[in-house]
Amino acid sequence: MAALFRGSRNLLQRCNKQHVHLVLVSSRSMASKTPVGFIGLGNMGSPMAKNLLKHGYPVIATDVFPESCKELQDEGAQILDSPAEVADKADRIITMLPSSPNVIEVYTGPNGILKKVKKGTLLIDSSTIDPSVSKEMALAAEKMGAVFMDAPVSGGVGAASLAKLTFMVGGVEEEYTAAQELLTCMGANVVYCGQVGTGQAAKICNNMLLAIGMIGTAETMNLGIRLGLDPKLLAQILNMSSGRCWSSDSYNPVPGVMEGVPSGNNYQGGFGTTLMAKDLGLAQHTATNTKTPVPLGSLAHQIYRVMCARGYANKDFSSVFQFLREQEEEPEKKGD
Amino acid sequence: MAALFRGSRNLLQRCNKQHVHLVLVSSRSMASKTPVGFIGLGNMGSPMAKNLLKHGYPVIATDVFPESCKELQDEGAQILDSPAEVADKADRIITMLPSSPNVIEVYTGPNGILKKVKKGTLLIDSSTIDPSVSKEMALAAEKMGAVFMDAPVSGGVGAASLAKLTFMVGGVEEEYTAAQELLTCMGANVVYCGQVGTGQAAKICNNMLLAIGMIGTAETMNLGIRLGLDPKLLAQILNMSSGRCWSSDSYNPVPGVMEGVPSGNNYQGGFGTTLMAKDLGLAQHTATNTKTPVPLGSLAHQIYRVMCARGYANKDFSSVFQFLREQEEEPEKKGD
Amino acid sequence: MAALFRGSRNLLQRCNKQHVHLVLVSSRSMASKTPVGFIGLGNMGSPMAKNLLKHGYPVIATDVFPESCKELQDEGAQILDSPAEVADKADRIITMLPSSPNVIEVYTGPNGILKKVKKGTLLIDSSTIDPSVSKEMALAAEKMGAVFMDAPVSGGVGAASLAKLTFMVGGVEEEYTAAQELLTCMGANVVYCGQVGTGQAAKICNNMLLAIGMIGTAETMNLGIRLGLDPKLLAQILNMSSGRCWSSDSYNPVPGVMEGVPSGNNYQGGFGTTLMAKDLGLAQHTATNTKTPVPLGSLAHQIYRVMCARGYANKDFSSVFQFLREQEEEPEKKGD
Amino acid sequence: MAALFRGSRNLLQRCNKQHVHLVLVSSRSMASKTPVGFIGLGNMGSPMAKNLLKHGYPVIATDVFPESCKELQDEGAQILDSPAEVADKADRIITMLPSSPNVIEVYTGPNGILKKVKKGTLLIDSSTIDPSVSKEMALAAEKMGAVFMDAPVSGGVGAASLAKLTFMVGGVEEEYTAAQELLTCMGANVVYCGQVGTGQAAKICNNMLLAIGMIGTAETMNLGIRLGLDPKLLAQILNMSSGRCWSSDSYNPVPGVMEGVPSGNNYQGGFGTTLMAKDLGLAQHTATNTKTPVPLGSLAHQIYRVMCARGYANKDFSSVFQFLREQEEEPEKKGD
Repeated sequence: MAALFRGSRNLLQRCNKQHVHLVLVSSRSMASKTPVGFIGLGNMGSPMAKNLLKHGYPVIATDVFPESCKELQDEGAQILDSPAEVADKADRIITMLPSSPNVIEVYTGPNGILKKVKKGTLLIDSSTIDPSVSKEMALAAEKMGAVFMDAPVSGGVGAASLAKLTFMVGGVEEEYTAAQELLTCMGANVVYCGQVGTGQAAKICNNMLLAIGMIGTAETMNLGIRLGLDPKLLAQILNMSSGRCWSSDSYNPVPGVMEGVPSGNNYQGGFGTTLMAKDLGLAQHTATNTKTPVPLGSLAHQIYRVMCARGYANKDFSSVFQFLREQEEEPEKKGD
Repeated sequence: MAALFRGSRNLLQRCNKQHVHLVLVSSRSMASKTPVGFIGLGNMGSPMAKNLLKHGYPVIATDVFPESCKELQDEGAQILDSPAEVADKADRIITMLPSSPNVIEVYTGPNGILKKVKKGTLLIDSSTIDPSVSKEMALAAEKMGAVFMDAPVSGGVGAASLAKLTFMVGGVEEEYTAAQELLTCMGANVVYCGQVGTGQAAKICNNMLLAIGMIGTAETMNLGIRLGLDPKLLAQILNMSSGRCWSSDSYNPVPGVMEGVPSGNNYQGGFGTTLMAKDLGLAQHTATNTKTPVPLGSLAHQIYRVMCARGYANKDFSSVFQFLREQEEEPEKKGD
Repeated sequence: MAALFRGSRNLLQRCNKQHVHLVLVSSRSMASKTPVGFIGLGNMGSPMAKNLLKHGYPVIATDVFPESCKELQDEGAQILDSPAEVADKADRIITMLPSSPNVIEVYTGPNGILKKVKKGTLLIDSSTIDPSVSKEMALAAEKMGAVFMDAPVSGGVGAASLAKLTFMVGGVEEEYTAAQELLTCMGANVVYCGQVGTGQAAKICNNMLLAIGMIGTAETMNLGIRLGLDPKLLAQILNMSSGRCWSSDSYNPVPGVMEGVPSGNNYQGGFGTTLMAKDLGLAQHTATNTKTPVPLGSLAHQIYRVMCARGYANKDFSSVFQFLREQEEEPEKKGD
Repeated sequence: MAALFRGSRNLLQRCNKQHVHLVLVSSRSMASKTPVGFIGLGNMGSPMAKNLLKHGYPVIATDVFPESCKELQDEGAQILDSPAEVADKADRIITMLPSSPNVIEVYTGPNGILKKVKKGTLLIDSSTIDPSVSKEMALAAEKMGAVFMDAPVSGGVGAASLAKLTFMVGGVEEEYTAAQELLTCMGANVVYCGQVGTGQAAKICNNMLLAIGMIGTAETMNLGIRLGLDPKLLAQILNMSSGRCWSSDSYNPVPGVMEGVPSGNNYQGGFGTTLMAKDLGLAQHTATNTKTPVPLGSLAHQIYRVMCARGYANKDFSSVFQFLREQEEEPEKKGD
């Protein structure tokens, strides 16, 4: 997600030692480059696979869409017909799929990876899914003698192409460096989060707090403007005070307050409202399943769900300012 | 409020030039020190008045509580019987009162300031009240040829004693430097916000976003912990990503994640939950009156209102983590 | 408000004895018909005043809009220039004004009622305002030896014309029958609620619960339909079960489920969304002032505030179904 | 659930013809009483199975807890070791299990029903689970030539013992009368809701609206009382107006307003807060999965989740009044 990506890069510059070890890039020799399997060649998966090729890794790939396969084949990848066949040829496999059902199918389906996976194979899933599904897959893989890690990404298509993604990795620590060797070819930050599923947990948590902070910033800026404050001055006051957050100081949703953010470009680009709504849906699921109260997270989920239907689906998620802003204007028009 | 104070100080260190001019401390000579009136000698007002005395200003004060007056008298202040009498003797008056009704009484009541205020008198109200009341007082003062400015403070009793308060000032710009001369004796930061009422607006806005960020951080940390993430690691990930906010990186609500914050001291000290609930009530009032939607701000208000009744009234507002944390434990005890 | 009106009439049919005494229509002779003052001749006030004329009461009226006065004059009312002059001529006065500030002006302003009110005058305010303002007016009236009662109405313009309003009355019980004599000329139900301000409280409480029930019904019907339930069948199941409420069984928001309600007529007529948003704003104010948590009431307030800006301002408040309904459709259109 | 049960019975008395056909009790002869399988002998399942025995049906049962089996065996049931064995002996099977995973295991597990189910077998699941799981089970059953229907119940243990449950049935209409023959032995109301999954949908929808109405009623009664209204009078006014709902007129949460409800008995008995929280979790899941916005339903879910941790887990869900009520008292004690 572009938003998270911006945030992490900004901060890494003043990132303390504790952080540095987290994003340490594996420096061990990459002498033996054995083939890497890649399953899921969509908007994100395709540029990720290309970056593996760029780093000299032979790639054995598959996808349900032939044209996606064709494109990667032209880049030098070998294309096979099913996840099972990829598993038969590669002992390191990365999957990048849209949602939980796809992951379940690709791993445990009739032509799934686990049908032909070899003992000791490293399976890295970069899809964003429910952590409980990641745990299920890890158990199923373990039964076959394979190792499963979850490594969801932050950073959008642009970050994927530039190999600037952030990976949040969950799984057995012994395998982390092996995973890191591949992930650092596709991303700028790789963070080890703990047991399997914690990569997903970290991403879901960050995005839930991000959504809360963004809506809160939009509400607050809107209220302040209504009360006669200059938007830029209000942003300065918040940013030097306890109200500051990433949405107020690095991605302000009010047009004209900052440059180089979607609010300055009619909310084009950035992180789409539907994508945020989906991540908040995952957060809601995990919170419900773990009986964890998330009152603001739930309301943020509902607000982005409403926005999806108000023509904001494809606008950057900071457009919640515009969504709320109209609130006070129309009633006046209507002489409320 | 301690929280906001901490935040601004922390940030001032890496504060850019734009910020610096905002908090420039008046350096002009203070040759002629004519008496300053001070009305409202409570927990905040008393140390503020003492700092004026320390800076060599004669203080003419009054308060409804004789003992408060006595204490300040011992410090060298002259005590009079009513706001009207103070207005008769001083042409610069500072008021520090608990709520809107007190302010209305002290300014427009039968023995109020405006009964005897002199033309050209500078009236500075540091109470935290509804911006619309500040505007009413400004109009009433203008009719008498006086000038009213609102200058609510951030920073608690400690900051008041140490003259480390932050003042957010609203009123006619020409009078700002005159106000600044006095306010800089009592505070470390003085920020000019615009027309009368905008000082209140700035404080209300900051505290609303602060409350949203704090509850959001507490929910998120709680969810992450439930999902198996280490609290310190989760805080690091959030703080290097787009989820970061003042509550996650400077005032983390989870015990053990940071030192020197109330969460490390059983939520003692800091900024009390009831005070936050009151500020959120003001934000709710102004939002309702201006027909501004504040969905997360409203819910935050309700949550702190509930906490006030759950024994959290006098704990720091970061105790919302503890309040939510218990959630998942008890049902297990109860075999839910 | 049309909605409340429908509800009360529907229910009165199976209303138990306890209820009956509440809505008993005064049957005592109306021999001596002394003049009645009427201030505020808007959409509601004008038909109310006409019903007093129809019942043979001489009416002495005033309003800021000359044309409103002219119209009532043609119906036989005497028109005077100010509330004060009306108070000089009538010892029973009814006020019907848009909001608190108007009420304060009309009662306590320079040409206000209290400037010339006679001892023992009965003042009945049918405006919908903050109960605390009603209490202030009652105190001010008492000082002049007059009696103030709050009597806000339920039922819209139609109900006002047909003398089918519901009045909720607060004030000293001894004066209730005197008030009832006049109110029964303009309404079908008159309910005594207790001390001054309780009439406002009863209306605010009913409308807050109404809003919660309506949004809840809209959410629920929408969810059920999405899950494959027939809307009429779902309404039947809810209405024979514990989910039933006035909004589900008497004013269902789903087009086609019921006849003779706004949902069957593109949400025209009925009770406008802006009016509901205003009443919820009053509920929010009183809840904030009394430190009463109203989590669902606050959220309902925010939702109707948002709807006001989405083109729903003048549609019936049951259009929240349409507002939420679109939610799930658009994302599909957008291929979410 | 006791609450829904009360509601439906109350209303059935004045229930119109449209309703009557819904709850028609099968009166056809029950000549051939072939054995009925019953899986899941918990608090609900055990009395349900006993009612089948009372009606003369041979019962072949199984449960993971031997003692539960022993108890039913003493009543004359035949006990087998697994769902598969029950499926081998009975062509009509009822399942009553705690949650989705149990249902999946009992139907599709290694010793599950579908391992030995006979063609044409009628499978009725009375568990309360996610409608999407019901649909999965129906598909799996269809592949084996069996028919699956979902028939969740309303009414608690008491209603189960008295055969007063309400069944909401989803599945192919042709099989409804066959299901009805058995369900009417265990319940007073049997409602056909439509395709498979709609029984679950109907229950989830009713309980979501019930929760919203109950919290709304509690907030409103609390606010009205704070504003000086008598609780009984306020309830009367709401119940004759548009604020009325099942929670206000049949299950009022304020002690002393009604007799024979949990609020009159320190919130003992009735429908526990944890059970409501679970049903709201299911509603949240289905809403999230279908991208349906349920803002009040989500907040109600969060509120009951919080209550579970505040010692209200086992109190009736109307105790939300007590939970909110304390709000305004404690702050005063604490001198807020």
